[in-house]
Amino acid sequence: MRRLPDGGRTTVRRLPEKQRHDRAELEAVLDAGRVAHVAVLDAAQPFVLPLAYARDGDRLLLHGSTGSRLFRSLAAGAATCATVTLYDGLVLARSAFESSMHYRCAMVLGRCRPLAASEKPAVLQRLTEGLLAGRWAEVRPASAKELAATAVLELPLDEWSVKVSDSPPEDPPEDVGLPIWAGTVPLRTSYGQPVAAPDLPPGIPLPRSVLRAVGSQRREDAR
Amino acid sequence: MRRLPDGGRTTVRRLPEKQRHDRAELEAVLDAGRVAHVAVLDAAQPFVLPLAYARDGDRLLLHGSTGSRLFRSLAAGAATCATVTLYDGLVLARSAFESSMHYRCAMVLGRCRPLAASEKPAVLQRLTEGLLAGRWAEVRPASAKELAATAVLELPLDEWSVKVSDSPPEDPPEDVGLPIWAGTVPLRTSYGQPVAAPDLPPGIPLPRSVLRAVGSQRREDAR
Repeated sequence: MRRLPDGGRTTVRRLPEKQRHDRAELEAVLDAGRVAHVAVLDAAQPFVLPLAYARDGDRLLLHGSTGSRLFRSLAAGAATCATVTLYDGLVLARSAFESSMHYRCAMVLGRCRPLAASEKPAVLQRLTEGLLAGRWAEVRPASAKELAATAVLELPLDEWSVKVSDSPPEDPPEDVGLPIWAGTVPLRTSYGQPVAAPDLPPGIPLPRSVLRAVGSQRREDAR
Repeated sequence: MRRLPDGGRTTVRRLPEKQRHDRAELEAVLDAGRVAHVAVLDAAQPFVLPLAYARDGDRLLLHGSTGSRLFRSLAAGAATCATVTLYDGLVLARSAFESSMHYRCAMVLGRCRPLAASEKPAVLQRLTEGLLAGRWAEVRPASAKELAATAVLELPLDEWSVKVSDSPPEDPPEDVGLPIWAGTVPLRTSYGQPVAAPDLPPGIPLPRSVLRAVGSQRREDAR
């Protein structure tokens, strides 16, 4: 991984104190997210597509349909940007101007490369495990036809920036004495009750992957 | 609002059964979201920026710093795309291929227009209320200096598409008999305990805006 060039296009100019330079922070944000918003240009019109992704070492893995025009443009190596944003809470200052959000945001610039057919099963495993850990071992193996219909791409983690907002509101001194509450309100995402498919035959219990995800969350709630 | 042209650039080609054509669906997705991922081109490199927004009738309102280079490019009217994605849950099919997510996604194409200085207070009110309903009346009024440092833009809701995935997994008939659990697991976002700013003087209670947001959620949880 090359270091971020100072003054380069991934240097954060707005609120630079929120920029993080540690690769571990990049990985933490990417591993916590589920959806990347990915730019694709089509006839001078940019589109922003939400795509499921997984991080695999030094690259992001993306998948899409071989029939998708915008995805084919990504596969052809057009310059792109993949942004992953986690929205963590409200920052309520004494003024609207200083009010904002807690967030973690990773932005990756680069060009995608299509992966060889031989890599597809491992990539789909990674993406499925990213959706829900433990699920890959539970599902039916992918068929040759399904693999052929799926395009998989990698986006190298070469040029990136990470910005984290996790501080209390920063009101100017003259506002701190005002009789206005200031603080933060965290937001968190949690699983609700699983809903069986209408066509699920009777007698098939919830799988371990789901029990583990919902169960570990219940333990966290109880703390 | 003009109707979507069939075959136009906002016609959903992938999984077209998920496309919605009702303007009320567009408004519902935009009103439920908090962050838009907005495309900006800079020297042939697309960037995807997470921006707070609010919907105001037939337009999206965006705000940013007058000192932001990418925001100035948006203000100059470059072609853009604002995508709002709400991630609602896991769709667990019997195969990895049919597994996916529940989501609601609105994509708006167009060009932003900067708004006049006289519109800024109303726009900041709208954005503050979008962050947390009732907050505008609680905060200190914006100063002339703060208004001058804030750029506000509108993006008309002329050309858009909405895609909603909210169905059970759709496994092919030959997979339905497999002894594999299939169904959906909802995801929901909720507020945690408010955290007072370290510089909050004693004796200032939680404001009504926060109590209402956290309280209405508790009532929902109890149902």
